[in-house]
Amino acid sequence: MQIGVIGGSQCDSNIAEIAYHVGREIGKRGAVLICGGLGGVMESAARGVVEEGGIAVGIIPTYSKGDANKFIEIAITTGLGHARNVIIVSSSDGLIAIGGEYGTLSEIAFALKMGKPIVGIKTWDIPGIIKAETAREAVEVLFRIIKKGDIKYGGS
Amino acid sequence: MQIGVIGGSQCDSNIAEIAYHVGREIGKRGAVLICGGLGGVMESAARGVVEEGGIAVGIIPTYSKGDANKFIEIAITTGLGHARNVIIVSSSDGLIAIGGEYGTLSEIAFALKMGKPIVGIKTWDIPGIIKAETAREAVEVLFRIIKKGDIKYGGS
Amino acid sequence: MQIGVIGGSQCDSNIAEIAYHVGREIGKRGAVLICGGLGGVMESAARGVVEEGGIAVGIIPTYSKGDANKFIEIAITTGLGHARNVIIVSSSDGLIAIGGEYGTLSEIAFALKMGKPIVGIKTWDIPGIIKAETAREAVEVLFRIIKKGDIKYGGS
Amino acid sequence: MQIGVIGGSQCDSNIAEIAYHVGREIGKRGAVLICGGLGGVMESAARGVVEEGGIAVGIIPTYSKGDANKFIEIAITTGLGHARNVIIVSSSDGLIAIGGEYGTLSEIAFALKMGKPIVGIKTWDIPGIIKAETAREAVEVLFRIIKKGDIKYGGS
Repeated sequence: MQIGVIGGSQCDSNIAEIAYHVGREIGKRGAVLICGGLGGVMESAARGVVEEGGIAVGIIPTYSKGDANKFIEIAITTGLGHARNVIIVSSSDGLIAIGGEYGTLSEIAFALKMGKPIVGIKTWDIPGIIKAETAREAVEVLFRIIKKGDIKYGGS
Repeated sequence: MQIGVIGGSQCDSNIAEIAYHVGREIGKRGAVLICGGLGGVMESAARGVVEEGGIAVGIIPTYSKGDANKFIEIAITTGLGHARNVIIVSSSDGLIAIGGEYGTLSEIAFALKMGKPIVGIKTWDIPGIIKAETAREAVEVLFRIIKKGDIKYGGS
Repeated sequence: MQIGVIGGSQCDSNIAEIAYHVGREIGKRGAVLICGGLGGVMESAARGVVEEGGIAVGIIPTYSKGDANKFIEIAITTGLGHARNVIIVSSSDGLIAIGGEYGTLSEIAFALKMGKPIVGIKTWDIPGIIKAETAREAVEVLFRIIKKGDIKYGGS
Repeated sequence: MQIGVIGGSQCDSNIAEIAYHVGREIGKRGAVLICGGLGGVMESAARGVVEEGGIAVGIIPTYSKGDANKFIEIAITTGLGHARNVIIVSSSDGLIAIGGEYGTLSEIAFALKMGKPIVGIKTWDIPGIIKAETAREAVEVLFRIIKKGDIKYGGS
C-alpha cells in the first residue's frame, strides 16, 4: 500500500510532531510513504516511516536529488515544479493532509477530484475531507477506508 | 495580456451566461483567453472571446485536438491529464474562477501559490480570492490589479 | 493548422537563416507556429512567422514569460523543464527539425512515436524523418503530407 | 543508487533475456531499479531485480496501478503519458538502454541532454552512448562510471 502525506515544507513543531507520528504509524503497518520529499511535514513523516523500517519515496519538484530531505530513500526527481503535486496524489492509495497552505490545498483538490480517500489534521476545511484529531486516528481511519474500498479510485 | 478563465466542464445556464460575458469583456480588451479548452465554462468563455475577435487558447488534458471545444483556435494538447491545470494558471497574468468543483479548486490553489491575482464569481470561498458579482466587475477588477502590478508573479 | 519548428536554442547564422525562412513560409500559409519559445532556431522561426502576420506560440520550460524571445505572442509557461518538449510535439500537426542537438533528438523521437510527420533539414539522421534541403521545400513537403493525411496522428 | 533500464514494452526473447540479467546484476549490487513499469524490457528487468531482493520502481504513464507489471513494488502513476519518460531519466543516476524504438530514443536523448551516463545494448547508435555486449558488462561499466563521477549530472 502507498500512503501519501502532504503538508507545508515549513511547519511549526506541533505539526512536525504530528507528521512524525503519522509516519511511524504508516511504517508500522508496512506501507510505503509517498511525499513531496522536501522539508517540514514531508521530512517529519519520512523520518517516522524510516525509523519503523519502512520506505520513504520523495516526489521532488526539481531535477536535483540534493533537494530531497535526508530520510528519503527513493527520490523521484521530476523537474516538473508544482505539477509534481498531481503525481504525489495519483501515486497514493489514500492521503493524510497535515496543516499546509496553498500547495497542500492543490493536493487536497486533486485527491478529491481523483476520488482518493483523504484524512485531514489541522488543515483546510474542504467538503470531502475526513477529519481526524491525532496521528493514530488519521492512519487508522484511512487504512480502514482503503481496505473496505469504500471510495472509487481513478475518478474523472 | 493573457487571462485565464477556470470553471467546470459542465455547468448550469446561469454560470454559462456569466462565463460568456467574461469572455466578451476579455475579448473587448484585446487580451488572449487561456482556458482548459473543454466544455462548460471553458466553452462559454471561449465563445465570448472569439465573438469579440479575440484569441482563445485551450490547454487540453489529452493528446487529441478533437477534445477541444469549437471556439478554441490554438489547441495545446498536453496529454498531461490533471497536471495541465498548472499550465493554465502559470500561463495567465491573472485568472477568473466561475463556479467550479475540485478541478477549479486545484487551479485556485495554484494561482494563490504562484502569486497570481484571481477573481471569483460564485466559486470556492478561499482566502486570497477577490470576490466579484458580475462578469464586467470581475474583468475590470482583474485588469486594474494586473496593470497596477500589485501582486508579485512567479511566487515560490 | 499548427506547425512545430524545433532546433537548438543556440545556432550558427546558416541554421538561423533557414529557420527564419521556414517561419516565413509557415506564416505565408496562415498556419500557427508552435516552438519552444527560446533563442536560436526558435527565435528565428518566430521572427519569420510574425513578419508574415502569423502567430508564434512559445511552449516555455520555465514559469517566466521573460524567458520567451521577443517574437512570441502567446507564451505557455509550463514550468515543466524538458517535459515541455512533449507538448511542442503533441500540439503540432507536423514538425520541421532544423539542426539541433539532444533536445531536438528527443522531440524527433516523440514526433515519430506519436505518428506526426516530421521533415528535417541538416538535423539528426533517424529513420522516419523526411529529408529536405531548403526552407521552402521543407514547408511544401510537410503541408502536402498533412493535407493528404498520409500519416496517422496520435500513435501509441 | 538508482539505475534506469529503458527499452520497448514489447521485445523478443533475446532482448528480454538480456534485460532480465541486467536486472539481476543491478539487484546484486543493491541498487534500486527505475523503469517505465510496463511490459517487455521493463518487466524482465524488474523481475531480475526483485529475484535478487532489490526494489523495482515503475514510473507509469497512466493513473492506473493496474498498468504496472507484476514485479513493480513501487508504482508512481504519473498520468503524464510520454512526458513520464523524462522522469525515468532524471530519477536515474545512470541508465542502460536495451533494444527499444522511438520511446527509448527519447529517453536516450534526455539522458545525454541531462549529462547522465548511458550504456546501450543492441539499441540506437547515437553519439554519447557507451556500447556494451552483455548484461554484466553493461552494469559493470555503468557502475564504474557513476562511482568515478566522470560525468556531470543535471546538465543544461
